[in-house]
Amino acid sequence: MNWIYALDMIGTLVFAISGVLAAVEKKFDVVGAFVLGFATAVGGGTLRDVLIGTTPVGWMNDTNYLILITLALPLCFFAKKYILRLPKSLFLFDTIGIGLFTILGLEKTLSLGLSPVIALLMGVVSATFGGVIRDVLSNQVPLIFRKEIYASACLVGGIAYLVAEYLNAGHPMNTFLSIFLVITIRYFAVKNRWGLSFNPRN
Amino acid sequence: MNWIYALDMIGTLVFAISGVLAAVEKKFDVVGAFVLGFATAVGGGTLRDVLIGTTPVGWMNDTNYLILITLALPLCFFAKKYILRLPKSLFLFDTIGIGLFTILGLEKTLSLGLSPVIALLMGVVSATFGGVIRDVLSNQVPLIFRKEIYASACLVGGIAYLVAEYLNAGHPMNTFLSIFLVITIRYFAVKNRWGLSFNPRN
Amino acid sequence: MNWIYALDMIGTLVFAISGVLAAVEKKFDVVGAFVLGFATAVGGGTLRDVLIGTTPVGWMNDTNYLILITLALPLCFFAKKYILRLPKSLFLFDTIGIGLFTILGLEKTLSLGLSPVIALLMGVVSATFGGVIRDVLSNQVPLIFRKEIYASACLVGGIAYLVAEYLNAGHPMNTFLSIFLVITIRYFAVKNRWGLSFNPRN
Repeated sequence: MNWIYALDMIGTLVFAISGVLAAVEKKFDVVGAFVLGFATAVGGGTLRDVLIGTTPVGWMNDTNYLILITLALPLCFFAKKYILRLPKSLFLFDTIGIGLFTILGLEKTLSLGLSPVIALLMGVVSATFGGVIRDVLSNQVPLIFRKEIYASACLVGGIAYLVAEYLNAGHPMNTFLSIFLVITIRYFAVKNRWGLSFNPRN
Repeated sequence: MNWIYALDMIGTLVFAISGVLAAVEKKFDVVGAFVLGFATAVGGGTLRDVLIGTTPVGWMNDTNYLILITLALPLCFFAKKYILRLPKSLFLFDTIGIGLFTILGLEKTLSLGLSPVIALLMGVVSATFGGVIRDVLSNQVPLIFRKEIYASACLVGGIAYLVAEYLNAGHPMNTFLSIFLVITIRYFAVKNRWGLSFNPRN
Repeated sequence: MNWIYALDMIGTLVFAISGVLAAVEKKFDVVGAFVLGFATAVGGGTLRDVLIGTTPVGWMNDTNYLILITLALPLCFFAKKYILRLPKSLFLFDTIGIGLFTILGLEKTLSLGLSPVIALLMGVVSATFGGVIRDVLSNQVPLIFRKEIYASACLVGGIAYLVAEYLNAGHPMNTFLSIFLVITIRYFAVKNRWGLSFNPRN
């Protein structure tokens, strides 16, 4: 369980940094930067918890989340230029984050007895809606609605997890391989600029 | 109960189509189209369920909602031009949807023991906030805040239902006539471009 | 307890008026004005209640909130010019509102057994997120993300309350002095245009 907790913390910090950097670009003040970092980091899981009814929402039971998110402020303040020089590693951490958040969100929903297809949807929501809330709060059209493959990578990873659990329930490799699949798809999607445009025939 | 379920499904599909078409106009990708269709179709009922505390939210207990909403994607993709030729029938279905969603939302809130005036508000929220969430997610000022009579038709229908229930509790015609009243008001509002502007004296 | 209830009602009405006036500026209709007034007045407390899981949300149990918010519509319609002439008193009431909402939100969260730091955060959310929701619904970047000291005043008042409770639990002056502190900070922040910009080194 320890490596999952570590990945969860890394994912939370990286998401928070992405929110704070978005706030810097919009010239928000400290409060705006904190709120945007916070919303990006925990927004997806929070929406999932509210919808499935596990309240108080998850991050309220472990102040490490709040500490890490707050840490993103001085990190961005003092080390912004170093962070911006590390796009590849950040991108990797972000992708680890969405992979992990998808599977954790899916497992949490399943554990309440909800159907696998709802659990799949909640997994994707957990991974992607932090970014949606960040974009809504900074008055922009959510990026994931028109960017390269992002939610779709989570979806495929979530389906792979469900299939693996069906074939071989409880095997620890299920989680690991599904996360790895999300990372792989996302990696090639960014590299090759894959997209899923939706242009109905006229 | 069967005709109510059928109307609920029709309303859900029509709302989902309206969300997907809004996504097409904004040049969103498949993910954006799905999220916008989903949010439009179940957003109002979801907000109501979260506020009154009946979680997991309603659509999680019946995957037919998810199936119908997903169906809106291929429907819009392959038959967009036919759909756009049917404004009148779509408008009718949409209106049936808001009428029904108002009364169902009102009944659900009442059944929790909340006061009639709160139930009325939650009825209107059920019917209209899917569209509000759709507009917020696509970075627009919500249409119902400045369009012709829409929420107000739901409000009048909801009041009529409460009065009818007070006079003649449990009569099946109460639901039917209230929905019919919403449709009628909305029909004449659109036809005659009724509005409720709010211009305070200076 | 009576003066707290009175301040709560005054804060609710003033927040509702601020929402209705924002709707007037955006040329919304009656529905938009009501929704914006409503969201501004109860949005923060509603988000808090949903996150900590005390549903149905607070204002559903006391229709006085709904009545006062509705009252903001005729008040703004008939007396807009008098209201706009009273910026100072309105500003004072608004500040009383955020001070009180911070402490009440903090106390409610603590009473559920959540940690003080989460309670502090929920106190600030209670006071400030009504305005955030108002701005998101009217398609604007939330003001508190780049305005003068606002959320920060709530934060300091909340910390003072926690310290006072730690030193002298249950003393009625704790609430009073914390609210007074929020008002004082906010007063000097507006007067001297204090801000907390966030400009990372490049």
